[in-house]
Amino acid sequence: MDGTAIVYTHGLFDTNAAKTSHGLVRGSSRYNIVGIIDENHVGKDAGVVLEGKSAGIPFFASIQSYLDKTGQTPDYCIIGIANAGGKMNPDWYPDLKTALKAGISLVSGMHEFMSEIPELVSLAEQHGAQLIDVRKPKDRDDLHFWSARIDEVPSLKVAVMGTDCAVGKRTTAKFLVEACEAAGIKAQMIYTGQTGWLQGGQYGFVLDSTFNDFVSGELEHAMYQCYQETKPDVMFIEGQAALRNPSGPCGSEFLVSGMADAVILVTPAGRVYYKGWDHTGRKIPPLSTEVELIKLYGVPTIGIAINTKLVDHAEAKRLQAAYEDDLGIPVALPVEEGVEPLITALQTQLKQR
Amino acid sequence: MDGTAIVYTHGLFDTNAAKTSHGLVRGSSRYNIVGIIDENHVGKDAGVVLEGKSAGIPFFASIQSYLDKTGQTPDYCIIGIANAGGKMNPDWYPDLKTALKAGISLVSGMHEFMSEIPELVSLAEQHGAQLIDVRKPKDRDDLHFWSARIDEVPSLKVAVMGTDCAVGKRTTAKFLVEACEAAGIKAQMIYTGQTGWLQGGQYGFVLDSTFNDFVSGELEHAMYQCYQETKPDVMFIEGQAALRNPSGPCGSEFLVSGMADAVILVTPAGRVYYKGWDHTGRKIPPLSTEVELIKLYGVPTIGIAINTKLVDHAEAKRLQAAYEDDLGIPVALPVEEGVEPLITALQTQLKQR
Repeated sequence: MDGTAIVYTHGLFDTNAAKTSHGLVRGSSRYNIVGIIDENHVGKDAGVVLEGKSAGIPFFASIQSYLDKTGQTPDYCIIGIANAGGKMNPDWYPDLKTALKAGISLVSGMHEFMSEIPELVSLAEQHGAQLIDVRKPKDRDDLHFWSARIDEVPSLKVAVMGTDCAVGKRTTAKFLVEACEAAGIKAQMIYTGQTGWLQGGQYGFVLDSTFNDFVSGELEHAMYQCYQETKPDVMFIEGQAALRNPSGPCGSEFLVSGMADAVILVTPAGRVYYKGWDHTGRKIPPLSTEVELIKLYGVPTIGIAINTKLVDHAEAKRLQAAYEDDLGIPVALPVEEGVEPLITALQTQLKQR
Repeated sequence: MDGTAIVYTHGLFDTNAAKTSHGLVRGSSRYNIVGIIDENHVGKDAGVVLEGKSAGIPFFASIQSYLDKTGQTPDYCIIGIANAGGKMNPDWYPDLKTALKAGISLVSGMHEFMSEIPELVSLAEQHGAQLIDVRKPKDRDDLHFWSARIDEVPSLKVAVMGTDCAVGKRTTAKFLVEACEAAGIKAQMIYTGQTGWLQGGQYGFVLDSTFNDFVSGELEHAMYQCYQETKPDVMFIEGQAALRNPSGPCGSEFLVSGMADAVILVTPAGRVYYKGWDHTGRKIPPLSTEVELIKLYGVPTIGIAINTKLVDHAEAKRLQAAYEDDLGIPVALPVEEGVEPLITALQTQLKQR
C-alpha cells in the first residue's frame, strides 16, 4: 500500500468520464481511498452512487473541505477523470494547487504530463509533494521487444476481451481472479491500463502510452515476470478497446503475442453502436462474428460475460439463454449472478492441460 | 528534395538488416542518393547488387574514402541499417564522427536517438551539422486522436498488407502508385514507416514509434490531409508487419480506422515460418485464412502480390495460378511481371463507386 488517497472527479463522478475513479471505488491495493472530491454528491457514499452498495467512501465538495472536515492530510490526490484527449484541464488547477500546498502528492493518468506544467512543478518542489504521471512512458532502455519467451510460461493464459470500450473488462477480470482464488485456483491479473496500475496491479503495463513497437514485448515481459515470481495456474490479461473498434482497434496482441489459450468476451447488452460513435452509425458487429474473428487468431472463446447496465433482468436472462444456445459456451451475468459459469469453463481448460 | 545523401550500411548492404538502404536505392524524392558506404561491395553498383539492374549508385569503403575520391561533401549521411532493438551501435561512431566533422548532417531511423548521445550532439553543434532522428515521436500537442472524419475522404482507400514482415509491402505500394499514374489514375501513398519518410513520403507517420493511443488518429489525419491537399482517386496505405505476426501484430488500424475499401495482400512464396521465428516453429497460416480474417474486419481482398525471392519462376507461376483458382482474385508477380492485374482490379472498384 502506497498510502491514503482522495480521488478528484470535479462534478463528473456519475459519468463515464470518471471511469478511473469507479475502478478505485471498486478497490485498490495500492491506495487506501478515503474520499471523493465531487460537489454533486456530498452526503452520499461513492459505492452507493456507483452501484447501489456501500463502499465506505464519502464525498467532499472540495479538497479544502476534505482537509477542514477530517483534519487529516491524505498522501495522494488522484485525478479520477479520463477526458478525451488526455489533456489536463486548467479548471482543475486551483484545486490541484490547494492539494500541493497541503503537501499532497498528485497522481494523474492523463496523456499531458503534470511534470511538464511549470506552475505545478514549482509548487510541488516548494511543498515536498510528488507529481506522479502514470502514463509517462518508460525509458527506452527499460522497454522490451517480443522474444518468444512467452513459450516458457505454462500458466493458462486467458484474455478478457470486449466487443467495445467501457464494457467492464477490467472489472470482469477482477471478479474472475477473486472467484478463482475462492475456488482454490491460483490466479493473477496482467493490467494493461492506468486504472489497473492505480488499483495496485503488480504485473502489466499501460498499453495506450507505449510506443507501438514495444507493445507485444512489454506484454510478454509482464506475463513472463508474473510467472517467474508467482507461478499462477491462470493469468487473466485485461483487454483494451475491441478488435474492431474504429477509434483504436486492440486485442490481437493478447492473442498472438501473449499466446492466450482462451478468451472470455464481455459484451454490453443493449448497446447498438460503438461507444461514442453513435452519430457516425458505426454498429458493433454481432457477437458470433467476434467469436469467429478470435478463432481466426487461433484462440477459442470459452465464455461470455454480459454487461447488463442498459437492460432489465428479464432481457439479460433472455440474452444469456440465447447466447448459450447460439455459441454453446457458458454465459455469465457478473454483476447480478457472479462469474461461476466461467470458472467452471476454466476448470475444464485446466483439466485438459 | 532536401539534398544529396550517402547511405551507411557498414558491411551489411546485402543483408535484410539494411532494408532501409534498399528502399533508398529503389528511389527517394527526399534525398539524391550519391553513394553507399559499405566496404564489401566497392567497385559495384548498388542497384546491381540489390536486384540486378543499375541504379547509378556506387559503393565506397568509408565516408573518408567518399570525401577523398569524389571531392564532394554530401548534405546528409543516412544510417541505412535497421538492427533489432533499434539501438545505435558504438562501432559506427568513428565513421559518424568523420561525417559530422565534415559538416555532414546525420539521419537515423533508430529507436535510440542521436540527439541524446552527447558526443554526437557536441560534434554536430561544433560543425554546424544536424542530427535528424526520424523515429523521434511528435510532441503530444501535434498528435491526433481518431475523429471519424475519415468519412469525409471519398478516395478509394487500399491497404497494402502482408502475411509477414519484410515481404515488399512498401515496394508493392510504390509499384502500384506508379502503375496507377501510368494508367491515368491519380494515386497517393500513405507511408507508415521511417523508410517511407526517407523516400520522400509527404503523407503518413511512423507507426512503430507512435504511442498506441494515437496510431488510429495519426493514420486518419495523414489520410485526411492527403485528400484535402491532393484529392487522389486512390490512396494506398503502406502496411506494417502482419495481422497475426506474433512479435507485433498490425493491420487492423488500416481496416477499421483507415476505413480501407479494399486490401491488396503481399505474400512471400516459399517462406514457411514468420521471419525470424523459425526456431520457435511459428508458421505463417494459409493465405486463404488471411483473406478470411480481413473479410471479418469488413474488407474484401481484391488482389494478391507474390514475393518470389525464395522460389524459381516455374514455382511462382504455379502459385499464381493456384491462388487465382482458389481465391478467385487476380494474383501479380510484381518484380517479374509488374502489377497490371491489380490495376485492373482497382479499375473495377473505381467504376463501382
